[in-house]
Amino acid sequence: MNHKSTNTQSKKLTGAEVAKHNSRESCWVIVHNKAYDVTEFLPEHPGGPKIILKYAGKDATEEYEPIHPPDTLDKYLDGSKHLGEVDMNTVEKEQKVEDPDEEDRLKRVERMPILEQCFNLMDFEAVARQVMKKSAWAYYSSGADDEITMRENHTAFHKIWFRPRVLVDVEKIDFSTTMFGTKVDIPFYVTATALGKLGNPEGEVILTRGAKKHNLIQMIPTLASCSFDEICDAAEPGQVQWLQLYVNKDRKITQGIVEHAEKRGIKGLFITVDAPQLGRREKDMRSKFQDVGSSVQSTGGHDVDRSQGAARAISSFIDPSLSWKDIPWFKEITTMPIILKGVQRVEDVLKAIEYGVQGVVLSNHGGRQLDTAPSGIEILAEVMPILRAQGLQDKIEIYIDGGVRRATDIIKAVCLGAKGVGIGRPFLYAMSAYGLPGVDHAMSLLKAEMEMNMRLIGAASIADLNPNMVDARGLVGHGHVQTVPADTLGLTVYDSLKGPQEKSKL
Amino acid sequence: MNHKSTNTQSKKLTGAEVAKHNSRESCWVIVHNKAYDVTEFLPEHPGGPKIILKYAGKDATEEYEPIHPPDTLDKYLDGSKHLGEVDMNTVEKEQKVEDPDEEDRLKRVERMPILEQCFNLMDFEAVARQVMKKSAWAYYSSGADDEITMRENHTAFHKIWFRPRVLVDVEKIDFSTTMFGTKVDIPFYVTATALGKLGNPEGEVILTRGAKKHNLIQMIPTLASCSFDEICDAAEPGQVQWLQLYVNKDRKITQGIVEHAEKRGIKGLFITVDAPQLGRREKDMRSKFQDVGSSVQSTGGHDVDRSQGAARAISSFIDPSLSWKDIPWFKEITTMPIILKGVQRVEDVLKAIEYGVQGVVLSNHGGRQLDTAPSGIEILAEVMPILRAQGLQDKIEIYIDGGVRRATDIIKAVCLGAKGVGIGRPFLYAMSAYGLPGVDHAMSLLKAEMEMNMRLIGAASIADLNPNMVDARGLVGHGHVQTVPADTLGLTVYDSLKGPQEKSKL
Amino acid sequence: MNHKSTNTQSKKLTGAEVAKHNSRESCWVIVHNKAYDVTEFLPEHPGGPKIILKYAGKDATEEYEPIHPPDTLDKYLDGSKHLGEVDMNTVEKEQKVEDPDEEDRLKRVERMPILEQCFNLMDFEAVARQVMKKSAWAYYSSGADDEITMRENHTAFHKIWFRPRVLVDVEKIDFSTTMFGTKVDIPFYVTATALGKLGNPEGEVILTRGAKKHNLIQMIPTLASCSFDEICDAAEPGQVQWLQLYVNKDRKITQGIVEHAEKRGIKGLFITVDAPQLGRREKDMRSKFQDVGSSVQSTGGHDVDRSQGAARAISSFIDPSLSWKDIPWFKEITTMPIILKGVQRVEDVLKAIEYGVQGVVLSNHGGRQLDTAPSGIEILAEVMPILRAQGLQDKIEIYIDGGVRRATDIIKAVCLGAKGVGIGRPFLYAMSAYGLPGVDHAMSLLKAEMEMNMRLIGAASIADLNPNMVDARGLVGHGHVQTVPADTLGLTVYDSLKGPQEKSKL
Amino acid sequence: MNHKSTNTQSKKLTGAEVAKHNSRESCWVIVHNKAYDVTEFLPEHPGGPKIILKYAGKDATEEYEPIHPPDTLDKYLDGSKHLGEVDMNTVEKEQKVEDPDEEDRLKRVERMPILEQCFNLMDFEAVARQVMKKSAWAYYSSGADDEITMRENHTAFHKIWFRPRVLVDVEKIDFSTTMFGTKVDIPFYVTATALGKLGNPEGEVILTRGAKKHNLIQMIPTLASCSFDEICDAAEPGQVQWLQLYVNKDRKITQGIVEHAEKRGIKGLFITVDAPQLGRREKDMRSKFQDVGSSVQSTGGHDVDRSQGAARAISSFIDPSLSWKDIPWFKEITTMPIILKGVQRVEDVLKAIEYGVQGVVLSNHGGRQLDTAPSGIEILAEVMPILRAQGLQDKIEIYIDGGVRRATDIIKAVCLGAKGVGIGRPFLYAMSAYGLPGVDHAMSLLKAEMEMNMRLIGAASIADLNPNMVDARGLVGHGHVQTVPADTLGLTVYDSLKGPQEKSKL
Repeated sequence: MNHKSTNTQSKKLTGAEVAKHNSRESCWVIVHNKAYDVTEFLPEHPGGPKIILKYAGKDATEEYEPIHPPDTLDKYLDGSKHLGEVDMNTVEKEQKVEDPDEEDRLKRVERMPILEQCFNLMDFEAVARQVMKKSAWAYYSSGADDEITMRENHTAFHKIWFRPRVLVDVEKIDFSTTMFGTKVDIPFYVTATALGKLGNPEGEVILTRGAKKHNLIQMIPTLASCSFDEICDAAEPGQVQWLQLYVNKDRKITQGIVEHAEKRGIKGLFITVDAPQLGRREKDMRSKFQDVGSSVQSTGGHDVDRSQGAARAISSFIDPSLSWKDIPWFKEITTMPIILKGVQRVEDVLKAIEYGVQGVVLSNHGGRQLDTAPSGIEILAEVMPILRAQGLQDKIEIYIDGGVRRATDIIKAVCLGAKGVGIGRPFLYAMSAYGLPGVDHAMSLLKAEMEMNMRLIGAASIADLNPNMVDARGLVGHGHVQTVPADTLGLTVYDSLKGPQEKSKL
Repeated sequence: MNHKSTNTQSKKLTGAEVAKHNSRESCWVIVHNKAYDVTEFLPEHPGGPKIILKYAGKDATEEYEPIHPPDTLDKYLDGSKHLGEVDMNTVEKEQKVEDPDEEDRLKRVERMPILEQCFNLMDFEAVARQVMKKSAWAYYSSGADDEITMRENHTAFHKIWFRPRVLVDVEKIDFSTTMFGTKVDIPFYVTATALGKLGNPEGEVILTRGAKKHNLIQMIPTLASCSFDEICDAAEPGQVQWLQLYVNKDRKITQGIVEHAEKRGIKGLFITVDAPQLGRREKDMRSKFQDVGSSVQSTGGHDVDRSQGAARAISSFIDPSLSWKDIPWFKEITTMPIILKGVQRVEDVLKAIEYGVQGVVLSNHGGRQLDTAPSGIEILAEVMPILRAQGLQDKIEIYIDGGVRRATDIIKAVCLGAKGVGIGRPFLYAMSAYGLPGVDHAMSLLKAEMEMNMRLIGAASIADLNPNMVDARGLVGHGHVQTVPADTLGLTVYDSLKGPQEKSKL
Repeated sequence: MNHKSTNTQSKKLTGAEVAKHNSRESCWVIVHNKAYDVTEFLPEHPGGPKIILKYAGKDATEEYEPIHPPDTLDKYLDGSKHLGEVDMNTVEKEQKVEDPDEEDRLKRVERMPILEQCFNLMDFEAVARQVMKKSAWAYYSSGADDEITMRENHTAFHKIWFRPRVLVDVEKIDFSTTMFGTKVDIPFYVTATALGKLGNPEGEVILTRGAKKHNLIQMIPTLASCSFDEICDAAEPGQVQWLQLYVNKDRKITQGIVEHAEKRGIKGLFITVDAPQLGRREKDMRSKFQDVGSSVQSTGGHDVDRSQGAARAISSFIDPSLSWKDIPWFKEITTMPIILKGVQRVEDVLKAIEYGVQGVVLSNHGGRQLDTAPSGIEILAEVMPILRAQGLQDKIEIYIDGGVRRATDIIKAVCLGAKGVGIGRPFLYAMSAYGLPGVDHAMSLLKAEMEMNMRLIGAASIADLNPNMVDARGLVGHGHVQTVPADTLGLTVYDSLKGPQEKSKL
Repeated sequence: MNHKSTNTQSKKLTGAEVAKHNSRESCWVIVHNKAYDVTEFLPEHPGGPKIILKYAGKDATEEYEPIHPPDTLDKYLDGSKHLGEVDMNTVEKEQKVEDPDEEDRLKRVERMPILEQCFNLMDFEAVARQVMKKSAWAYYSSGADDEITMRENHTAFHKIWFRPRVLVDVEKIDFSTTMFGTKVDIPFYVTATALGKLGNPEGEVILTRGAKKHNLIQMIPTLASCSFDEICDAAEPGQVQWLQLYVNKDRKITQGIVEHAEKRGIKGLFITVDAPQLGRREKDMRSKFQDVGSSVQSTGGHDVDRSQGAARAISSFIDPSLSWKDIPWFKEITTMPIILKGVQRVEDVLKAIEYGVQGVVLSNHGGRQLDTAPSGIEILAEVMPILRAQGLQDKIEIYIDGGVRRATDIIKAVCLGAKGVGIGRPFLYAMSAYGLPGVDHAMSLLKAEMEMNMRLIGAASIADLNPNMVDARGLVGHGHVQTVPADTLGLTVYDSLKGPQEKSKL
């Protein structure tokens, strides 16, 4: 698969030479000080030709960097198109268009709160929203359609109430647990999220280091900005990692990835099953548009499927025909535990057990795929009583992800029967705003909350958590309350009560 | 029915001649360069005499055009009152009153977003609201009374949640279906909506062309701005159209319309049964008032029933005595499938089956008739289990309309048992803002959403959709939640949590 | 009971003479050009001495007028204290304090919308709020405590949804009905509301005339600004009126009132049973305070029970010991139908039947008494099935009041089993803003809505309305939904979706 | 335990001498005109060394005063470190940093509403929020995590509706009751709340005096600003007080406290069981941070557990190992009634009965401990039917606290089976804003509301209140409604109905 550059080069190309190739007919771009001829590649570019043409004859590094792993050009562009090094001194500096939004952002960065002012995971999101680049924020924060599921994911936890026990000895609290045999400090893992370099130039390896520091497992994403090996290399000896897998239409590629992962010591293979096609995320699409398209003329409604945000661009390889009958093949090619990530109904959990996989993640992909899909925590509340009734609760490890922001959310999931929960965006936000110290602080906050709340619910260890300690009636069956629209006329004419008024003057 | 003008005319009338007839005693108006004597017609005008008198002696074309089909004057004003052509050069140009709202609107039109910035059907509504004429917007966007039903129509879909299947081969997705035997690309049709020229000077024929492009059926409205034949003529050979019918008090007229429609190849007759009288839409009425009445003196509460918006003006012919016993007569006069549009309870669906009609549309007329009538999707969820229990589900085709904005809404309706859904306002908004390209883009968006969401729910074809794939418990029985009013005092004194604050200075 | 003034007077008092008596020790006030010595009466004044002392030695007419029926001084102040006429030319004109709020109000009165701009009953409230005097608005619009019940009264109707019938002949609609044998045009009556002159100098007789014009029954309030006889006299021959009765601690007074009412032809005696003490209405109290107290020093928390708004001031005579055992006495002293106004639970409806009264009004006094008392419409939905189960539904006429604003509200109440509904505040607002034409217009609007909505629900007459035509499941049992407080942090950090943005410039 | 100062001192220390000891190596501070050497104590300070070092070499009285009872230094700092009196004239006056927020606050204090403008308990909170010091407000008003439970506490009462009885003789109302044998005027007590001097320099003794005036019981907090004996001494002869107890890790200390309390005549021992660790209250933490930390550099996420607000600082002595097996020991060391404060589930109420304690308080600690713990009133509604079913309802006295603001709240709790309710924050706010007159006024308001509402619900005495008088179906089981997130796109494009518009000009 690797096409090494075969160009030999006595002297560097000049900016002027490259600049001549600035059209669809002949299109060169510079990436990391090297020039590439992408003319023939244009129609094949998963993100569409438009975005490349914007940089025809120019340096595209800044745009290219965060959304392509470092080995991308080697893998996908034939060596003959690698034109060699460019003398960057000869490349005309792009006169950056003044962007008042960006200026405002830079001012916000200067004034950003110090890390100690973040007291919970939402605080990182509040800061990140202020200081991240608009397009990066749009990619991380967006969800499918009306983002109802994305928001429901968090809201659902508030439908569950505690039934705390008092007068229990909670001096010593131990909330460590195991996940597929690996001992971890606290029942959550860092779930896979794409394009880490959008938020921080170092990318996903920051999460690797944070996970190590807190003795947690990181799940490596297929669509990482860092290469898989970079992320493995960032782990310390003995540090456990999992792999999230989008299955390629070309099974040989998938097999290569899986076997390589096993060789690198990966301890769990999480096959994503909720994304036969990557979701439309309008907040992201709108942001992309503002970036590229706002000055162009209307072209009549075509090109709907192009430039639909970063993730769709780089995901065209995903196989939408993946189905249950592929599962046995995975069991043949690896001895890693196999986990289905994105299961969303009882029937499919039962099927997963039947097919002999080791785990499932009840998940809707962070609300980024199908809108009005139920939250993982709700599916969990529906699944577990059925597994218990059939004596199947120990046949499989059940995880959930989506919307987890508080230790109370984790405790609720464990009470209802989850082995643990995945947390994604909050660590991206912490990393984007504050780098590794941010991720470290976020994990510390969760541990502090966890200790506190284990005490307050009256549980000294994970084994003490059980369904009797929560009231989840608000969740199952009656949970999907959407209120009737209010009569705006009636509300408008109602004169609200007010408290005492200050004297108008002394 | 046609009264041809019998006036022969050697030379054109002058503006001065017409201008003399500017009173209730003698009232002439100019429409499309021709003068008409409407003195005797004044008391019969369905929209009331006031609006005509405003144009007495003047050119009324601009006001007249969008709310009267082109053959109106021929049909309803005796030929002797057709006074012949007017030399428009002699007609004094109306000094238009400066309208700051209209100036603002024209500025908004200049700045309006380009079509590619519309990512979903709501976006067209957002744009249309900015760029449409105030009165046109008011007519399209208004609903009955407090608009609770109008908003509930959309909201109701959010009470239904998916139960998606994973690991299903969804590489090839086919969401075509049939409606009364006609094959269509996707399970929706363009439902009938009145007065298309209010939004776009070309009127309903734009929808005809859009429907053709996407292989969909258009339902032609009785109250179209274009004439029925214009809309038929706009269809391409083989393109299927339906007719929406308001039944006239004079059954001969109705019979004429039905027979003519059948002759023109119409493939379905949708008899509106939810509008024995057209609804009061206060947003529309208020807009009308601001147009005409805001400078006049209060007249003491009379004339309540006049000038109540465009639709009521042109609908006085509708027969409020239409009843079940008329149905056999329709079956006699036509071989087209007969569908009752606007059925709202189980009992009436059962009756429709008994009376042998081919279909029903569960609908509340877009929330424009009876406020706090239930949404079509809720009625569907109540109807289908009863039909299935009685083995009647195949005796009739069931459609719904109202509030559909997303492909997920369509999928939910089909899962619950609908053959398809009708979509109206969104295409009007698309047409008003962007013309045919807008309609085309809106339909393309729905198809793109449909493909995506069929994949994500795990269904490769319409046949795969079934009630087990949705959780509609939030809809039936417990769905009508109206929260208790909050205590405003308590809310006011509560000091909301805030996230980290920026440093006040560096 | 009447103490006629026995003062004979050769020449008028001067303003200077009256002005000397400006203290607690000797306190004279002028009302309608006559002086009164109220020194001894001060401690007995139901509204407290403070408000009188404000006018000691001065003309109190403007403050006195709207909250005291014209015969008050004759009835309650001994004739010896009636000091005779005052030469008003000699009375110093009070230098009115400039009140910027009042100036603003007068400007709003000049700009107030014309009557035709009111399209529904809420519109009158919106206008009245702008143009009424602050204190009058506060008295009319206020409710008990947090005004939860007051708002719930209206909201409750939105928990009921229609199940409309279609294809019913609704050409001729007749929504007349009878109430205790009296034929009325539409199933509502004008319920009793106090202090009509606060809103309009003519007071309750305006409602008498409006009721006549629309063939409706007016219920005369005990606490009217006009005297009982004035209101009776304002009725035309044959016009039916009812009497609302607060029962006096002195039963002889009550007996006098009842016998006088029967003599004057009153056709129904509505005994208020939900007000053993008149409610605390903080909006009203706060308004009073701003009027009188904002410039005074804090006095340490005393006088809590004084100056608590207009109604409490004039209601100290009401007997809190009134109980079921008084009912037989009422049946002895009158042949008028006896109706209990303010019943709030099933048990008490059954008791009312047992005690042989002719009717009950399920009511919480417009939300002005006990907060979180249920709405009349909810009690109705609970009462009627029990009455029907026991075969008692025809033993008594059931009415409700509270929150009725739309004809759909009336229809829902009648469907559920009410004989009719009472409407109060909306007519006060209409009267305050527009006088009799306002009341007339409001009633016309309800009739227009009624005709429309009877057609749309598929009912040609009141007899066609039945419980099967509504879905009231949202009301009974599950209706009292108060949502869980949202997490403000989560809501704050959520970045809402936005529609397409305008171009920033051309 | 008491370490008397053994220093003898001929002449006073000077400010200059003290100022030399301004470092971690040698740290002296002045409190109430005396100097102390706290160098060795620094690492042991429960609030962390940082806050002390801020005052090293300086006068710390103002910061020290409200959060340390007067005997703290005697108790916890060895006498050898008591350095004797300081000549305060020689101490350099701290140049106070100008704080614009504080200036604004002082202006608000000047304009604050007079006491009579407070008509209910929420009004005190509204005023207190304006006039209290920021940090004091943050400490009193904050709750755990997202403050969902804190707000739910109040909201829960609105899920209960009355079923009032009418025509009951309510002339004489008596709402006195008994609590553990003590007769009180009204069924509430002043519950324990910490750090009273933050709001008012006199501290908790103000509540003692208010309670006496209204014949109520005050519960003395362990973490009071006044010393226990000061609060006892403030009581008048015969005035009953209770003691709230945090159990110390050193049981000897606890035993001393309990025995001393019994000797002083305390009539009830309320052992707090819901706070093995004191809660994280982010509003409080954020406020603390702004105070101390906003100018410092980020330190990388350490010190998470330090400076987490006032309460945690002074609560490190609390024993998290306290458990059921400690209960018999308490019964041995005291004859006072023992009550468990903070019980939160049925099982633990049953256990409390089993262990023979005299009472429980169903409470979540004012929403300050575990977020999404249920409200006391909801637990009550779940507990009482089970106690009654098992015949245990008279074995124990049940109290609730949290969110009580209205007499209707008290009545609802008593109807459902509570002996009484605790009220805390509202009196703190009243005391902070208005001192003793505020507390007195607040209690008077509750009594006035109580009399009114007892009448309106139809109950002449506490014995008349029973479960049949409330509809609590909204609370139990279905009560935890969290609505589904609304689609913001749909809401944004909806054009709300508006009422009549004013004319734009005359």
